[in-house]
Amino acid sequence: MKNYREMTKEECQKELAVVSARYDALKKGDKKLDMSRGKPNPAQLDLSMAMLAQSPFELITTRKGTDVRNYGELAGVDECKELFADLLGLKQENIIMGGQSSLNLMYDSIVRALLLGVYGGSKPWGQQGQLKFLCPVPGYDRHFAICEEFGIEMINIPMDDNGPDMAMVKEYVESDPSIKGIWCVPKYSNPTGITYSDEVVRAFAALKPAADDFRIFWDNAYLVHGFRDEDDQLLNIFDACKEFGSEDMVYEFISTSKVTFSGAGLAVLAASPNNVKFILKQMGVQTIGYDKINQLRHTLFFGDADGVRAHMKKHAALMAPKFDCVLDNLNKEIAPRGIGSWHEPKGGYFVCYQGLPGTAKRTVALCKEAGLTLTGAGAPFPYKKDPNDNVIRIAPSYPDVPMLEAAMKLFCVAARMAALEVLLAE
Amino acid sequence: MKNYREMTKEECQKELAVVSARYDALKKGDKKLDMSRGKPNPAQLDLSMAMLAQSPFELITTRKGTDVRNYGELAGVDECKELFADLLGLKQENIIMGGQSSLNLMYDSIVRALLLGVYGGSKPWGQQGQLKFLCPVPGYDRHFAICEEFGIEMINIPMDDNGPDMAMVKEYVESDPSIKGIWCVPKYSNPTGITYSDEVVRAFAALKPAADDFRIFWDNAYLVHGFRDEDDQLLNIFDACKEFGSEDMVYEFISTSKVTFSGAGLAVLAASPNNVKFILKQMGVQTIGYDKINQLRHTLFFGDADGVRAHMKKHAALMAPKFDCVLDNLNKEIAPRGIGSWHEPKGGYFVCYQGLPGTAKRTVALCKEAGLTLTGAGAPFPYKKDPNDNVIRIAPSYPDVPMLEAAMKLFCVAARMAALEVLLAE
Repeated sequence: MKNYREMTKEECQKELAVVSARYDALKKGDKKLDMSRGKPNPAQLDLSMAMLAQSPFELITTRKGTDVRNYGELAGVDECKELFADLLGLKQENIIMGGQSSLNLMYDSIVRALLLGVYGGSKPWGQQGQLKFLCPVPGYDRHFAICEEFGIEMINIPMDDNGPDMAMVKEYVESDPSIKGIWCVPKYSNPTGITYSDEVVRAFAALKPAADDFRIFWDNAYLVHGFRDEDDQLLNIFDACKEFGSEDMVYEFISTSKVTFSGAGLAVLAASPNNVKFILKQMGVQTIGYDKINQLRHTLFFGDADGVRAHMKKHAALMAPKFDCVLDNLNKEIAPRGIGSWHEPKGGYFVCYQGLPGTAKRTVALCKEAGLTLTGAGAPFPYKKDPNDNVIRIAPSYPDVPMLEAAMKLFCVAARMAALEVLLAE
Repeated sequence: MKNYREMTKEECQKELAVVSARYDALKKGDKKLDMSRGKPNPAQLDLSMAMLAQSPFELITTRKGTDVRNYGELAGVDECKELFADLLGLKQENIIMGGQSSLNLMYDSIVRALLLGVYGGSKPWGQQGQLKFLCPVPGYDRHFAICEEFGIEMINIPMDDNGPDMAMVKEYVESDPSIKGIWCVPKYSNPTGITYSDEVVRAFAALKPAADDFRIFWDNAYLVHGFRDEDDQLLNIFDACKEFGSEDMVYEFISTSKVTFSGAGLAVLAASPNNVKFILKQMGVQTIGYDKINQLRHTLFFGDADGVRAHMKKHAALMAPKFDCVLDNLNKEIAPRGIGSWHEPKGGYFVCYQGLPGTAKRTVALCKEAGLTLTGAGAPFPYKKDPNDNVIRIAPSYPDVPMLEAAMKLFCVAARMAALEVLLAE
């Protein structure tokens, strides 16, 4: 197998003919393959069915005697807050239980900041002219969609295997008061799969923002989503912040959407006691409280934080073979040809394929034409603009392994075609 | 028994001595009575326990095959939308299933209007200077709290037994483009218990707002909450709107917080197809979808709209004796003394006591001192300012009947004391 970048034009031409024929063969038949979103497979959802089979009479009363079927307990049920505090290395006072969608919590946090302001801020974001957010890229499309919706300008921050370029982050955050936030998926990052190094986390904690109302949106979506024996270790940002007295700068978000049920799990906002008190006062105007039956249901099902970790081992057993499949195909078909690179994540939901510049859209289109839906090229970037058109997010969780095998075969052929076309056009 | 307003000062003085002694006697002991909020009693919550006991394997797949445990279906599960559409006399296309709190839906609707604008509006509310809402009074404190939170000026609109003063509503809405909305609880109104007449509903539908982005917030919280054999009939506002082509002007809200579980039920936003499409586009940035397992759980539990109505009969059997108790006490102790009036509601959650001017705060304080918590005086008014200090919301749902009997005894004594004090000070 030859590195495409070392081939002559003639060799490329020949190879393209071979690969195109292979592509045409794969295109035949009515395939419906989907690797577009980080959706759990039904087998993963089955892992939590026992949670729904608990006796309803266990789901009535909290340990302090609150009837969870009735109004009240805006911040959530104590034992549930305790469980998630343990999982996050925090205290109950840091926790707000917030419905079933962490995306919704993030959106609402930005809405409150815009209309009402944040703890310690002199006025609402919305009264301060043009606002900006920093966006480590590639990143999560739904984060960027929130900024776009509210006209918040997004600035790309490059990432490497240790996390965002913190010199650049520091330069922006400490010089420009219109920068109000930064989006982070610090562990098994969406989509690159890397985990921020301790040094990067400490650099976040050490930031001295020019704005008095800057917030780090720490979307720890894949906190417990390692699927290898060895798990990446993410430094607890609140621990790091203690040294600098900067705890008020961080909003952390997690959910059980990929632990129990997607859309019927629990979402958590973790923050300093100052932020929690401030947010609860605002939140009390929005709602009397979120679904406490579901909070008790989850708490009884897991027992404690170790219960969550044990449960995630079952997910790991289902996820690992899928990542094996994706990586095996890439390592076999792409690596020797020198036309793409990727991080091999130990957890999370994605593999991030970085091809030759100018190949992402074409690869996605070729796959689509042959019956495989991928996340749109550009999606991992603000305004859907991938400056090099070379990043593709691969989401292997939903299909089963045989489907995935077929999908990856097709993907690799499409990626090779796109690469050859670009090399020939050079 | 004598009408207090026909008594001489001397008689009043004598009566006050008698009533005060009675109050002092009632004050003894360590009472903890609560009639402050419209909370269901645990016996009402017990009525829905079977909903939680359904087989989890029934709670997986919708009729069109969607796995409700996974992401998707932003607007909700079809069969669930259908059920609530039937209940509201609408179609599936009018329905958005939105989490478990209608208050949250109302808050979010106002947030979206402020930041992004509404269907047909030329720009977001938030870019149009000082905004105003009309508030029929007495009304629901949590509605008013939303306006206060966002600095929306509230204008009191008087109500009678047919609903708000529609001449005044028309005058405001049709002349002032800064008026962006009106809060309505059209059936078994919170707190007066009246239901808007057909004429009033038609007058709403006929409004020609000066603003291109005015909305009626039609909080139909007590739609199915009649507890007498005869139920008030509320004209379907969307039917009324058809005549005037004004369907886009209405947002209707309901929830099952007082049907199944408070805080773990379902909330619904009903609107014209134009509004629904517009809102879903905005909502899709906020969340991937609400709890569909809970939607299927409710749908299977009720079967259909008639199932909801049948279920509410069970609530009625628990609620009616409580309203009997409140009304019996008022009719016996207050009516003949001519110091208060109230509507006798056939449904809903409240009796609205209107005493002599200047007696509400005093009555509530006297009750508090003797161990009975009532909704704060002033709460049913914008900015908590009851212009006549004479309205008290009585919420009889939570206590059981013996507790309620004790609470009402105390209430009547306190109300008499407050009235006598005012009459003596005249």
